[in-house]
Amino acid sequence: MGTVTIQLSCLRHIRKLCFSCPWEGRRLFKMLLQFHHETQRPLDPGCLLSQDAERSGDQPGRAVVDFPVAAVLPAGGSGERMGLTTPKQFCSIFNRPLISYTIQAFERLPWIVMVVVVIAKDNHDLMLNIVRKFNHTKVKVVHGGTTRHRSIYNGLQAFSDSTDSSTPKPKVVIIHDAVRPFVEEDLLLKITLAAKEQGASGAIRPLVSTVIATTSESYLDHSLERAKYRASEMPQGFLYDIIFQAYQRCSEFDLEFGTECLHLALQYCGTNARLIEGPPTLWKVTYKRDLAAAEAIIKETLSVSACIIAEAEEEAVELAKTLQKNLNMMETDVIPCGKESNVQYLSKTRNFIHISASASSSSWVLEMVKCFEDIDHARLYPVVIVWVQLSKTKQSADSQETDEFMALASEVKQRNVLLYGIKIDHSKELEQWQRSLERLGQITLVLIRDRNMALTGQMLHV
Amino acid sequence: MGTVTIQLSCLRHIRKLCFSCPWEGRRLFKMLLQFHHETQRPLDPGCLLSQDAERSGDQPGRAVVDFPVAAVLPAGGSGERMGLTTPKQFCSIFNRPLISYTIQAFERLPWIVMVVVVIAKDNHDLMLNIVRKFNHTKVKVVHGGTTRHRSIYNGLQAFSDSTDSSTPKPKVVIIHDAVRPFVEEDLLLKITLAAKEQGASGAIRPLVSTVIATTSESYLDHSLERAKYRASEMPQGFLYDIIFQAYQRCSEFDLEFGTECLHLALQYCGTNARLIEGPPTLWKVTYKRDLAAAEAIIKETLSVSACIIAEAEEEAVELAKTLQKNLNMMETDVIPCGKESNVQYLSKTRNFIHISASASSSSWVLEMVKCFEDIDHARLYPVVIVWVQLSKTKQSADSQETDEFMALASEVKQRNVLLYGIKIDHSKELEQWQRSLERLGQITLVLIRDRNMALTGQMLHV
Repeated sequence: MGTVTIQLSCLRHIRKLCFSCPWEGRRLFKMLLQFHHETQRPLDPGCLLSQDAERSGDQPGRAVVDFPVAAVLPAGGSGERMGLTTPKQFCSIFNRPLISYTIQAFERLPWIVMVVVVIAKDNHDLMLNIVRKFNHTKVKVVHGGTTRHRSIYNGLQAFSDSTDSSTPKPKVVIIHDAVRPFVEEDLLLKITLAAKEQGASGAIRPLVSTVIATTSESYLDHSLERAKYRASEMPQGFLYDIIFQAYQRCSEFDLEFGTECLHLALQYCGTNARLIEGPPTLWKVTYKRDLAAAEAIIKETLSVSACIIAEAEEEAVELAKTLQKNLNMMETDVIPCGKESNVQYLSKTRNFIHISASASSSSWVLEMVKCFEDIDHARLYPVVIVWVQLSKTKQSADSQETDEFMALASEVKQRNVLLYGIKIDHSKELEQWQRSLERLGQITLVLIRDRNMALTGQMLHV
Repeated sequence: MGTVTIQLSCLRHIRKLCFSCPWEGRRLFKMLLQFHHETQRPLDPGCLLSQDAERSGDQPGRAVVDFPVAAVLPAGGSGERMGLTTPKQFCSIFNRPLISYTIQAFERLPWIVMVVVVIAKDNHDLMLNIVRKFNHTKVKVVHGGTTRHRSIYNGLQAFSDSTDSSTPKPKVVIIHDAVRPFVEEDLLLKITLAAKEQGASGAIRPLVSTVIATTSESYLDHSLERAKYRASEMPQGFLYDIIFQAYQRCSEFDLEFGTECLHLALQYCGTNARLIEGPPTLWKVTYKRDLAAAEAIIKETLSVSACIIAEAEEEAVELAKTLQKNLNMMETDVIPCGKESNVQYLSKTRNFIHISASASSSSWVLEMVKCFEDIDHARLYPVVIVWVQLSKTKQSADSQETDEFMALASEVKQRNVLLYGIKIDHSKELEQWQRSLERLGQITLVLIRDRNMALTGQMLHV
């Protein structure tokens, strides 16, 4: 079966259709989602940067989801399996805890009205600091119980208090793990719509390994036929009334030893969940190696594009064009210097390459950082600036220049901007120059991809 | 239950006991392995560097495994799930394909006599090049079939030809995935001994997700009780005669659609496999993100230790001691310059920090690289050299010096040695000096951990 991609633009057309003829539009939208599901297109984890698009008003979900949806994120785990002292949801990637990435995956969607984060009491202050630092505006923090089910139940109870108008009861509640940060809007939409229709829904994945039944003496009893079974993953969606009732009715044994919300909905409310296949990026960050994998995904997502800013000199413009060719693995724009304060360019990427051909002042760096602050561009992810200095003579940076550059980099690093320098010497002969150009491309790419905090302020040579 | 670590030294004592009184020693060894298994200590992925210890003669396995053991690695997969064009077993980490890491995990064990690698015919030349480049000496390359089971069967048939004396029939055969590179000796030992005793054995892991049965219409049917089931992983071990017979007897349907060797042994030879819980590092590199996770594990393993070589000047020695303190996350030795040609120091680590206090010649770099070549130290993993240059005056590298350093780095990179430079200026005031020292520690650590190929030849400043 072929693969089909639903473009955002396509969703926009359907949204318009929704307004002109709601019934037809919505039915078409559901059909498309269904088709999309059946073709099982591998979804990419590119949600990270789409948040800005979401903010700008193109909101396919809002047109379809016209009822209140909230999320509950149980995050009381201790991280024992990780082999780390910090619980995994609080482990940081780029100085930002994993849980903040997951919260953001929900918060960026206008049709999600609230995210209830359930944490161990000991982590209360830590969590409030995270909410403040990363400006999470839809979060309510609730204390967890001793088991996963008790924590989720506590989270659900936050909505049941009719005297608290800050947490109105949602129609649908999505339960998700704090350690699955890469959940995309289209899956959340499918889960939500299926939950609304069916009462319960859950993401599944094919089994990676054969599942076997064991005897009590650690011998093989039999192996399961892989095709009949699936791994139950998160997110799961429920009509709020159903899952809350299931938790109210279930036994102490369930609360103590159970792990599967779909099972509670089935056993105590007779609701058979609709199962929806999710992408591989749904996986749960469980071991230390998973943190490296999550970091790699974030790095890749952050480095799909860059903006090359060329100063006015002819050599700078020429170098910019050559560099653009050599960075063909990224989407790049070349713009003249002066336009970098234009929000339109700034907000499109978090990677900037500034090319100057003479010993120019560094004042533009601080101006640019000021612009980032104005649009809050570096709060969630570090922004990279690579300053490429083209010199026409064989000259090296003197010690003072080096110190000043390092001090500047230290200063902007406080504001989550990573500044690196590269010197390229134009006096070289053709063959050397070609090698330098090649190296310039490689090093620029590495600096942008790695976002290495320890190497900021270095002036590299190519 | 507490955790128990069996030290190599302990195994050595048991080995001695084996020689003096084979029966008692072997019984004790088995008891310890059994106890070890029951306490389920989380195993670490530190196998990578232990190969040298294995080579040096301390071989616990050889004393216990006194029968021929071979391995079969099916590696015919196409890597579709990876989202990459290269099949995942041929994806490289540090310019070395994953399959070479897995081969090495077996080849380094003296008691493994042969590793049969089963590949798609199209990859024949590629595979032979890998065998040559990484000097794999126990490998036999066999062409695979159209399915996993057919490939394994082809691999097993390589031993059945009694006229080919280069592949004698092993007593026990271990089947393993080419994309699970972090398999450790102690698990292989347990699998081998259990297979010898029981006829079949396999590694298992607890289920990470709940497994659910689905109706044909994608609804939840029921969820399985997690405690009764396990994920079946690799390696698996078999008496050769049993697994070969099972493949001879099994149906075309099995060969076409089956995936589980343990199931064949049970169904066609009535052999119930003994199941042994393996460490989390057994996981299968399946998606692109798993490659990042594997790289992170290799990087971590390669950067547990370093050797700091100080030139004779007092300042160099002092700086070496301070750096040693700041690198407290690594095991470090400080040795005087001149001893770095001593194989004893060289072979203990793949990270070297050379500290000089005056503008000294770089001739030691080439001498050191020559020594690496003599002991074949950089064939399997890149070796890092960080050259720390302590200057007493505010002086920067001139352009010629920079070019020469880069040329030297390019030269040694051909031999898998990554050379980086760091300049530290002693003329600074105390507070600045303290900051420089701190930065020196951070940057040295980053250079060693990242082993970034594009940044070799750079002269950094702290």
